[in-house]
Parts: sequence; C-alpha cells; structure tokens
Amino acid sequence: MQLRHMLSMFLLLQGVTGENVLIWPAEGSHWINLKPVIDVLIEKGHNVTVAIYTATLHVNYSEPTAMHFEVFEVPFTRKKYEYFMEQSLYFWIYEKPHLSKWDSYRKFSTIMANATKMSRKMCDGILKNQQLLQKLKEAKFKVLLTDPVRNCGDLLALKLGIPFILTLRFSPGFTAERFCGQIPAPPSYVPATLSEFTDKMTFIERVQNIIYFLMYDLMCNQMWNDWDIYYSKVLGKPTTFCETMGKAEIWLIRTYWDFEFPRPLLPNFVFVGGLHCHPAKPLSQELEEFVQSSGEHGVVIFSLGSLVKNLTAEKANIIAEALGEIPQKVLWSYAGEKPKMLASNTKLYKWLPQNDLLGHPKTRVFITHGGTNGIYEAIYHGVPMIGIPLFADQPDNMAHMKAKGAAVVLNFISLTKQDLINAVNTVINDTSYKENALKLSRIQHDQPMTPLERAVFWIEFVMRHGGAQHLRPEAHSLSWYQYHCLDVIAFLFICLAAIVFALKKCCMFCCQKCRGTREKKNKVE
Amino acid sequence: MQLRHMLSMFLLLQGVTGENVLIWPAEGSHWINLKPVIDVLIEKGHNVTVAIYTATLHVNYSEPTAMHFEVFEVPFTRKKYEYFMEQSLYFWIYEKPHLSKWDSYRKFSTIMANATKMSRKMCDGILKNQQLLQKLKEAKFKVLLTDPVRNCGDLLALKLGIPFILTLRFSPGFTAERFCGQIPAPPSYVPATLSEFTDKMTFIERVQNIIYFLMYDLMCNQMWNDWDIYYSKVLGKPTTFCETMGKAEIWLIRTYWDFEFPRPLLPNFVFVGGLHCHPAKPLSQELEEFVQSSGEHGVVIFSLGSLVKNLTAEKANIIAEALGEIPQKVLWSYAGEKPKMLASNTKLYKWLPQNDLLGHPKTRVFITHGGTNGIYEAIYHGVPMIGIPLFADQPDNMAHMKAKGAAVVLNFISLTKQDLINAVNTVINDTSYKENALKLSRIQHDQPMTPLERAVFWIEFVMRHGGAQHLRPEAHSLSWYQYHCLDVIAFLFICLAAIVFALKKCCMFCCQKCRGTREKKNKVE
Repeated sequence: MQLRHMLSMFLLLQGVTGENVLIWPAEGSHWINLKPVIDVLIEKGHNVTVAIYTATLHVNYSEPTAMHFEVFEVPFTRKKYEYFMEQSLYFWIYEKPHLSKWDSYRKFSTIMANATKMSRKMCDGILKNQQLLQKLKEAKFKVLLTDPVRNCGDLLALKLGIPFILTLRFSPGFTAERFCGQIPAPPSYVPATLSEFTDKMTFIERVQNIIYFLMYDLMCNQMWNDWDIYYSKVLGKPTTFCETMGKAEIWLIRTYWDFEFPRPLLPNFVFVGGLHCHPAKPLSQELEEFVQSSGEHGVVIFSLGSLVKNLTAEKANIIAEALGEIPQKVLWSYAGEKPKMLASNTKLYKWLPQNDLLGHPKTRVFITHGGTNGIYEAIYHGVPMIGIPLFADQPDNMAHMKAKGAAVVLNFISLTKQDLINAVNTVINDTSYKENALKLSRIQHDQPMTPLERAVFWIEFVMRHGGAQHLRPEAHSLSWYQYHCLDVIAFLFICLAAIVFALKKCCMFCCQKCRGTREKKNKVE
Repeated sequence: MQLRHMLSMFLLLQGVTGENVLIWPAEGSHWINLKPVIDVLIEKGHNVTVAIYTATLHVNYSEPTAMHFEVFEVPFTRKKYEYFMEQSLYFWIYEKPHLSKWDSYRKFSTIMANATKMSRKMCDGILKNQQLLQKLKEAKFKVLLTDPVRNCGDLLALKLGIPFILTLRFSPGFTAERFCGQIPAPPSYVPATLSEFTDKMTFIERVQNIIYFLMYDLMCNQMWNDWDIYYSKVLGKPTTFCETMGKAEIWLIRTYWDFEFPRPLLPNFVFVGGLHCHPAKPLSQELEEFVQSSGEHGVVIFSLGSLVKNLTAEKANIIAEALGEIPQKVLWSYAGEKPKMLASNTKLYKWLPQNDLLGHPKTRVFITHGGTNGIYEAIYHGVPMIGIPLFADQPDNMAHMKAKGAAVVLNFISLTKQDLINAVNTVINDTSYKENALKLSRIQHDQPMTPLERAVFWIEFVMRHGGAQHLRPEAHSLSWYQYHCLDVIAFLFICLAAIVFALKKCCMFCCQKCRGTREKKNKVE
C-alpha cells in the first residue's frame, strides 16, 4: 500500500506547472476534505488562493501556509457564526427528535432562513467589494474550485470570467445534481439522499422514495427562488441559481462505488470519495504504548466528529459506562468534560490522529457519528463501524454502510449502555462485518487511479483546456418539457388523434354512402 | 507522446500475473480492435485462449502466435461465409440505395435471417461440443471477453461458470445497452445510433429520433425473441437473451467523448475508444520517399477499410480522376483492379501502415469509409477527414465527425469528380477542420489513463475480484414497470382518487344533512 501511495504521489507531481487556482471553500469536514487537493496543487507548483470571510470557523487564515488567503469582511463576527452553528447542531441532535413534524419543520425553516441571510452576507462581502474583485481579476486565475454548500462560488467565477469546478458531497434528494447537473436518478432504484433507503426497496419504500424526491424538489426550488433574484441581479441579466450552477465544467463528487449504490452518472461527474485518506503513519510513543497494551483484544476508536465537542453528562456517562465493560482498550476523541463513569480502559483525547489509528493493525472497531470523511478512513483501512448518527447526512451515510454489511447503527437518543456493548460485541465477533469492511477497502484501493489523482487530473485538465465542454451534455440547453419529450409526445398524440378522426370520418362517409345506395336500391325495388 | 506511450506501457506491464483468459471474438475491424488488448494481456503474463470456428475470415488461427486457439467445427465453409459477407456488403453499398424502403427491408430481413442461421450454427458448434466444453472447463478461465456482435459468448461464460466482459461498439438505437445494460438514454438529446443525428436536434428531428428508438426496439426485440428460446434451452431454465447479456460485469464501449456526444452512463460502462492507436512508427524507405516527394502540399491517405476490396470500374475511375487533380500526393489502399484514370500523383497499395501514415507530419487529409478504427487513428493523430460512408455504422460515425467540425461527408452513390476535389480543397484550405481534428486529438490524449490501460485494468479487476458487482445497478432486478415506477404512480393515483371520492362523499353527506335540517326547520316553521 505504501509503495502504491509513493507511486501515486510520483505520478501526481509529474509535469509541474505554475497556474493560479482560486478556492471558494466551505466549513468543517468540507474544508478538511478540500485541503489534500490544495496541498497537491501547491506541490505541483500551482499558486492557490483561498477567498475566505473574516468570520470563518475552520479556515485558519492567520497561520502561515503555502496557500494565499484573500480575506474579506462580513458584517458578523466569528463568535456569532459559531453560536449560530452550535444552536443549529443542538437543534439537530437534541431537539428535533422530540419535536412534532410540524414544529420541527417550523424550527428548521427558521434556521434555514437565518443560514440563507448569513450566506447572502458572505456573497455580498466579496461580490460588492470592487477592489478585491479587481485584484482577483488581475490575478488571472485559470480555474475556481467551489464547494456549493456555500453559495456564490459559481457567481464569483462568472464575474471573473473563469471556468469553475464543483466539489460536492450531495444535495438533498440529488436535487442540484438532477436539476442543475442533468444527472438522471430513476427513483425506482436510486434512493433519494437523506431518505436512509438503499437501492433495494420494497414497494412501500419506493412510494416513500418518490415522495422524498418530490418533497426535496419542492424544498430546494423554494430556496432557489430567492437566490434566482440575487443571481440575476449580480450577473445583470435574468438567470437562475440552477442555470449558473449548471455551468460547472466538472462535478467532483466526494464518494465512490464503495460507498454509493450504483446509479447513472454523466461524463462530467467524477467520483473522488476517499481522496483525503492515506496510509497510516506511525503513532506517537504514548499512543502506540496504549494501543499495544490492549493485547489480543485490540482497540476501539471513538469519535463523533470535529463539530460535536460536548455531550450532555447523561449521554457521556452512558457511553463511558458501556465502554468500560468491553475487553478492548478505547481511544475516545472528546473535548467535553470527563464523564464520571469513565473506566480505566478508556482514554479521552482532545484530538486523535484518526487516519493513523484506523490504519493500525490493533484497531477492531470504529465508533463514529457517520461523517463521510471518517467513514472513508474506515473504508480505506478496512475497519468495521458502529454508527451513532447525529445530524445532516449522517443517518443516510450509516444506512449505506449498514446495507453493505460493514456497520451496525445505533440510535443516539434512545442509546442505552447495553445497546453499545452489544454492538461492539456483534461487530467484533461476527466476522462478516470485518470481511465486508475489507471488501469495501479493496474496492477503494483497486481503482484505475487514486481519487486524489483523479480530482487533481480534472482540475488541471480544465486549466489546460480552459474547460471540459466535451463532457457537457446537451440536456443543459433543453427546457424541462423538451428534456422529457413532452412536446414530442403531445405532437405524436395529436397526429394519432387526427389519423383516428380522419379514419372515423372516412368510415362514416363510406357507411352513409353504402346505406344511401342500398336505400335507393330498396326504393327502386 | 512517445514518452507518454512508453510510461503507459510500463504501467500496463506492472504486477504481472498468469491467469487464463478466454476470448470470443468477432470478425473484421472488431478483431483488429481486440488484438491490442490480447497482446497486452499476453505481455502481462496471462494465457489467452481464443475460441474460434473453422470458417473464420479474419482470425488467422494457423499462424503461430502467443495466443492459443481452440478451433471448433461449423457446418459451413470459409468460402461460403465469405460469399455471404460479400453479398451482404454488395447489398449495403450498391443495391440498398436504389431500392424502395419496402424492398430494402425485405432483402435486409432475408440477409438477417441467414446471418442468424449461421450465428446459431456457430453457437451450436461450441455449445454442443461436450468434449471441448469439458476441456475449457478444466482450463479454469478467470474471465471471458466477448464481442456480442457474435452471439453466445455470454452463454459460453455461464456454461463455464465464469464472469464475462462485453466489448461493444454499439447496438442499433442503443437497444442492448438500454434494455440489457440498463443505461438511460433520454431521446431528447441522445441521438439513436444509426440515426445520423447529433445531440443538437430540431423539434422534427427529435420526433424522428423517438421513432428511430421505437423502430430499433421493435426490431431488436423481434430478433431476440428467437434467441430467448435458444438461450433458455442451453441454460436449461427460462431466461432471455437480454437477461443473459445483462449479467456482464463490465461493458467496454469502443468509443470515448471525443467521438460520442455526452450522454448518461453507468459505473460498469467503461469507454475505451482509440485503444488500438499508438504513436507512428517510421515508414519503409519507399513509402517515406513517396511521402517526402509531396513537398509542401503533403499527402492524402485514402482507404475504404479492410472489408471493401473492390469498387465498380466506374466509381474507381471517378475517384482516380479526382485524386489526379489535387496538388497532394495520394496513397490509396486498394486491392482491386488499377483504375484507368489513375494519375501519377496517386499510388495504389494492397495494404498500408495506416496508423503510421496518419501520424506522419506530411499527412493533410484522411479519406475514409468512416469505420470506427480508422476514425480513431485520425483523431489520435489530429488528421481531418473526408468521409465516404458505405454501410452499417459508417454514415452515423461520419455524422459525428462532421458535427464536431473535423470532417466533410460525401455520398458514395452520387459521388462526382468535382465533389471529391472540392472536399479535399475545403478540408485543407479551411483551417477549422485541422483545428477541430487537433482538438479531438487533445481530448483523446489527455485522459487520466490511456483507453488500453483502462480496458486491461477492468479485465484484470474482474479476474482479481471474480467480478465487479459493486458497479452493477439494482435496476437489473426490476421489471420494466417497476423501473419506470408505473406501479407506484398507479398506486398514488388510486390513493388520490380514493381521497377525492371520500371528500366528495363527505361533502355530499354534509350538504344533505344541512339541507335535511333546513327542510326540517322550514317544516317546523
């Protein structure tokens, strides 16, 4: 694996050129996933500039790095943004499960409205900053790489007159991919994202899946309506959010067929899931000693992701107690207060070298919230999982891993000590989980080229050729009724109706003629 | 380019293993296209066996090569097969254009019926040969590579209990790809193969395109009906031709996005167009001298493919006369009688090193019948084309090249001397043809890995993992009405109707109640 990685890095660094690349990143795990791409672009001699707002939570623009930052002002502080994110997380994890569907929808709508307001301010922050725009224009960027979870990267690219590439995990119900990217997704076997369904659905699940698709279409279209006005205003011509996003040269999708269920794609959709994974580096002496002390039982790695820093004391104690009763040693990535029930086999860490630990031969299970980055590290190293999904795509992600036989999924709200103990024992003692995790790992490793190579290849391709128009389907220039051939079907139907009508008239005319002749004959007789 | 080719060969030959591969090839250009794949598999240390019938026209099984042949008897001679092929070609090129649609369809049906009879005999030749089957079973092949233009490769794989891969140019109207491979092809922007349309269609063309799709669906389904019985009999259980073909692990499609218009695909469809192309080797002294003698005007390469050896004297003279009037030197690959009008600037050759000539810097134009192999050699070397399509997919192929601005297309039947002269002058003097050919060439060369690497990678992947089930869409297990959600739509419609009915009943009941009370009141009053 190490040799393959070295060869991959050698290939990646071939043909060094020095182009200017502009990045429009998003927060949290999205930023973590983008960094390896930026690192390789820099190693290849490109000049990478990241456009970031002052209130960013995860993009550390003050630390000296090889990338250049263009920081622009927004009319809110980092603290306010952090508070907003924490409140949103609290709602997702603790409030939503107890609310009625209606109350949940109302609260969620309020959060979304606030998020949109902030997003609009971020867009204004750069698009109304003429001085910065001019500076960026003069830098003659060859491409802009944007994460559409933060709007306006596409707008910025159009304002600068440069091609852009999307780096995307998914949109709810594949709405953006379907409407703006023109990717087909037959609802009979393509489960809507966030539906928690798999590609094998019962009749009732297929009914629900279609309803999910319709619901997300409605929701996204409502959200996009507001943005349509903003986008038209900025570009100075009538346009839509979706049309602008659809101008992307390449859609880098942050999954692969180890994680996804096979579904239709288009030539300009490139699947690069797992690009941030790499072979495990040696652990620090302290960590290595603790891991080795686990003996034949091995260790369990526990992390609920970079966003969740605290749990309620009750939850933390349930987990601590359960972990105390398993024979493995446990490394728990947790920045909250030490739970009272924490046992001697469990150690808390503010931060863990997760990828290196998952690649350690002593690691038996990964207990995860089900973020895509963590799941991919487990897939890469072939480690079976226990999912305790908390919010956003996490329940859906874990449903994928469960369907592929590489994970057991637990409910965070109703979680009991025994649930967690049983889950650990099941995943360790039933060898099918490890086998399936290794199978996914083999799929991840056995690709024509690594996901990181693929992502960088297509970014550089767009720079070399000024785009990738040869991969862009003509569907983009059709209206929805043309795409679905409704005009053709209507035309053929009218033709058919006209023929039937003409035939009927002919028959009636002939019949009358015959009857007339017969009557005449009868009269004569 | 040479360096890239060497690196590619180095990568291809990494990790040599010695597995057994079985090949079920087709004739003509299909076999030419398959040979580079076989060569690399052998270079990589695999043992390649080709199963071939005694009457084969193009697979030279008596010549000593590194591949092994398993030759089986068929109850017809090579001569008879050759005569049948020549008659079919004569019909396509000279008869069909003069016949009425009905007469053409009748004659074509007779040819197809004869082809099916021969195909059935080829299938019987191996599938009823128990001794050979047993021998093949004992050889423990890891994969079978089959060209479905010749039926029964899939059946053979299933009889031997091994996974199989299809190597396919296309089926009429993508019928096999759509029905057996489950690939979506929206008729609004995906032109039916053989329709000669592009992805940009007018309303009337879209109507015609849908009719083409329907027509080919009907034609193929009729043809498959007969095969369904044969396939069920061989496998000893009710099955269909399409279901069996759909069990393919990978569909290697012999085109790429330089040639194709972007359209939806599935993860198990791999596009490997141009895999047989390679950098030009030096020409023989005689050829090089002739080419160099062309001076600044350069040379024109003329070939109507490996199947067309003769033209009528009239056609040959029209072409010879036209070629005599252009300032370029012409190299004409032609095995027929020397035309009387042949000028001194034109030389006839029974065989030409086409790829090496197309890669020569003096080459200005390639006059071609429009076979995919020749087109790909022109694309690879960035040479603009003049197409004189003769039969099968050739008119459609040339329509693609014309749409991409890299070719002028002429009609073979109505071809005049002046047509050909004008075409050569246009393609040489209007630089856009050369520019577009170079653009296609850049797309062909700038891929994450070469098409040959990609083809071999996926063949070896299937051998390493015993298949590629992680790429297989679940659509294969759905019936056609489930796939299109017709059952779900019917269910939702019934639910809606029931709700409307119940609401109506409720309203009526309420109205009656109200009216009853009012009447009662009135009565009391």
